[in-house]
Amino acid sequence: MIPRPSGIVTLTTDFGLEDPYVGILKGALLRASDKPRMVDLSHGVPPQDLAAGAFVLWSAINRFPDGTVHVGIVDPGVGSDRRILAAAAHDQFWLAPDNALLGAVLAGDPAAEVREVDLEHLRIQREAVTFDGRDVFAPVAAMLASGRFGFSALGVRIDDAKADDLLFGSAVDCPGAGGKTKGRVVHVDHYGNLIVNVPAEHVAAAKSVQVGSECVPLLRTYTDAATGGLLAYVGSFGLLEVAVRNGSASAKLGIGRGATIELQNK
Amino acid sequence: MIPRPSGIVTLTTDFGLEDPYVGILKGALLRASDKPRMVDLSHGVPPQDLAAGAFVLWSAINRFPDGTVHVGIVDPGVGSDRRILAAAAHDQFWLAPDNALLGAVLAGDPAAEVREVDLEHLRIQREAVTFDGRDVFAPVAAMLASGRFGFSALGVRIDDAKADDLLFGSAVDCPGAGGKTKGRVVHVDHYGNLIVNVPAEHVAAAKSVQVGSECVPLLRTYTDAATGGLLAYVGSFGLLEVAVRNGSASAKLGIGRGATIELQNK
Amino acid sequence: MIPRPSGIVTLTTDFGLEDPYVGILKGALLRASDKPRMVDLSHGVPPQDLAAGAFVLWSAINRFPDGTVHVGIVDPGVGSDRRILAAAAHDQFWLAPDNALLGAVLAGDPAAEVREVDLEHLRIQREAVTFDGRDVFAPVAAMLASGRFGFSALGVRIDDAKADDLLFGSAVDCPGAGGKTKGRVVHVDHYGNLIVNVPAEHVAAAKSVQVGSECVPLLRTYTDAATGGLLAYVGSFGLLEVAVRNGSASAKLGIGRGATIELQNK
Repeated sequence: MIPRPSGIVTLTTDFGLEDPYVGILKGALLRASDKPRMVDLSHGVPPQDLAAGAFVLWSAINRFPDGTVHVGIVDPGVGSDRRILAAAAHDQFWLAPDNALLGAVLAGDPAAEVREVDLEHLRIQREAVTFDGRDVFAPVAAMLASGRFGFSALGVRIDDAKADDLLFGSAVDCPGAGGKTKGRVVHVDHYGNLIVNVPAEHVAAAKSVQVGSECVPLLRTYTDAATGGLLAYVGSFGLLEVAVRNGSASAKLGIGRGATIELQNK
Repeated sequence: MIPRPSGIVTLTTDFGLEDPYVGILKGALLRASDKPRMVDLSHGVPPQDLAAGAFVLWSAINRFPDGTVHVGIVDPGVGSDRRILAAAAHDQFWLAPDNALLGAVLAGDPAAEVREVDLEHLRIQREAVTFDGRDVFAPVAAMLASGRFGFSALGVRIDDAKADDLLFGSAVDCPGAGGKTKGRVVHVDHYGNLIVNVPAEHVAAAKSVQVGSECVPLLRTYTDAATGGLLAYVGSFGLLEVAVRNGSASAKLGIGRGATIELQNK
Repeated sequence: MIPRPSGIVTLTTDFGLEDPYVGILKGALLRASDKPRMVDLSHGVPPQDLAAGAFVLWSAINRFPDGTVHVGIVDPGVGSDRRILAAAAHDQFWLAPDNALLGAVLAGDPAAEVREVDLEHLRIQREAVTFDGRDVFAPVAAMLASGRFGFSALGVRIDDAKADDLLFGSAVDCPGAGGKTKGRVVHVDHYGNLIVNVPAEHVAAAKSVQVGSECVPLLRTYTDAATGGLLAYVGSFGLLEVAVRNGSASAKLGIGRGATIELQNK
């Protein structure tokens, strides 16, 4: 259940790319070990937006070699006594503050194991109180990815991590007798595509989706719609998506994150 | 003519950097091989903009070690039956959809060899229909860059790839008797510099360029103009450029991609 | 005093990430040597903004392994006869144009050694006059980081480099008899936090800071303020910062780079 480290570390933050913060984070990793390969997953999480960060981390499940260390830093509580979590789930490792950033990842793996990172035991000392990415997450990720510390040596196992699932928790309204499947837009991507928290298996029986006053046909891919036309489809996340071919569904529909989508059998 | 792989893969997409798409693409490459070094060429190609993507790919010619694999993903036809191309040209490898993204690259090398990637033969199966970057380009790039598959093993040779040259094709109006050399702005960069599709050798005899109602002097470099002043020069792409010293020519002239520029001998 | 190369090269430019310039810069480095590891420090320096670039380079001091090569390219004088500097300072190497970009780095290390890079001796020939990042900085960084040339082989030692300290020079008004410590906002980060050029040791005695008409309390970290509330604190750069908890101090105060901040003992 606990994978061998792949030597790869992914980084997900709300740092943006304008400031030197991401570079300094990588410098701290390299000061701790010259072994890890680092991959930016996204630094475009809006500041302090836990749900957006949770989506990015969730999207990495199964997408990297087993034993990859995923570091998630969206951390409005930095400097407080909130805990630092290390998790093993989906054959990967995950490091994040104890603030539900890992909720969707943990919810998807019943065998997930969570530990509280013990900074004293690991002899990690902060240089500042406001940049745990540099002072805490980078050295811990380096220890884990380089194999210098095993996962179980990072701290004691806990079972009370903040694990609210900000993506799927209470969001999909599964169809009962005469009921309808409803979903929520959990991400609007760069193209203006709406990503909805309804997994593929709930989409199979539907024929269209209702978004606001629009009835959008369920198709296979973009080129099945007319240029500028709306379509719904199962996208690359394995979730329902709504798009405009060669355009922005978000702009066309005037809809953003949080909007409700309803599947229909007609 | 077919180079040995350098182990380097460059990535050019219209994915942007906000979403996890680029990270997931890299994860797919790393799942296929831990060998390649990946370099982002640009992920800022505007969505579905083939000409902008063609410019970025063209700009990589001669700029990386021989045998580098350049992956170009601007792919409005994803999910349709458009082909996946692998090309050997300019001592480099190129992977892209069959949609003219490689047109300028292929036009510049008469010895270019193009193959249709045979997914069945390579045992590549898509997980989704809308993310061939992850499901197709990443594993093929890894095969090629790691040396696991040679170029000629990727598929049969074809000679009917979509090879419209979106940058230079029918764009430069070469000077005949009494004629003038005209060019087109093919890229506006971050500084507001206008990059024009007129190669250096056509610039030599000229003394100025006409842009809208402005006559802009041909100079050697920025510091030869006054601060805030316009200048034309042969830029680092080997093409004519128009700039404002410490300012934006695009903003000053109110001109963007597609505008016409005329060289003058006075 | 002269460290052994770590094999790491960091890149700080005003190139932005939309164009292929950063990718081409990395390609030039890889053509010169396949050894260096490259880390982006920031490519978001505003065009030609030397003070902003100086801040990013200064922020890398002590943040990377000894012997890291930091390349800084904000270069409005490219194409002119301005010199190319190589410096050894803070156990790191630094390459930049001779335009005060390294001023704050050099000011902080009395033992800093500066050399003028001798392109003829290194047999470096430019392909263009407007892209020294590609044609000069990349090969020099590769030579230095790969160990092919030692620091002292890069050129003769000089003592007249442009070394104005654009960050700290004449900016901190230290408290005399009855005097007050004043500082200047030298960076506004992605979160809207104001970074002030007053080092931690000058902050100790103060109890609040005056920003415009606002008296902002000095606290330890964000969570010590109310959500939406202003706070001042010693941040991760070791400098005074002013922030809004889960918000933007820059937006709330209507203040940007260059604004004056005054420390108070009440």
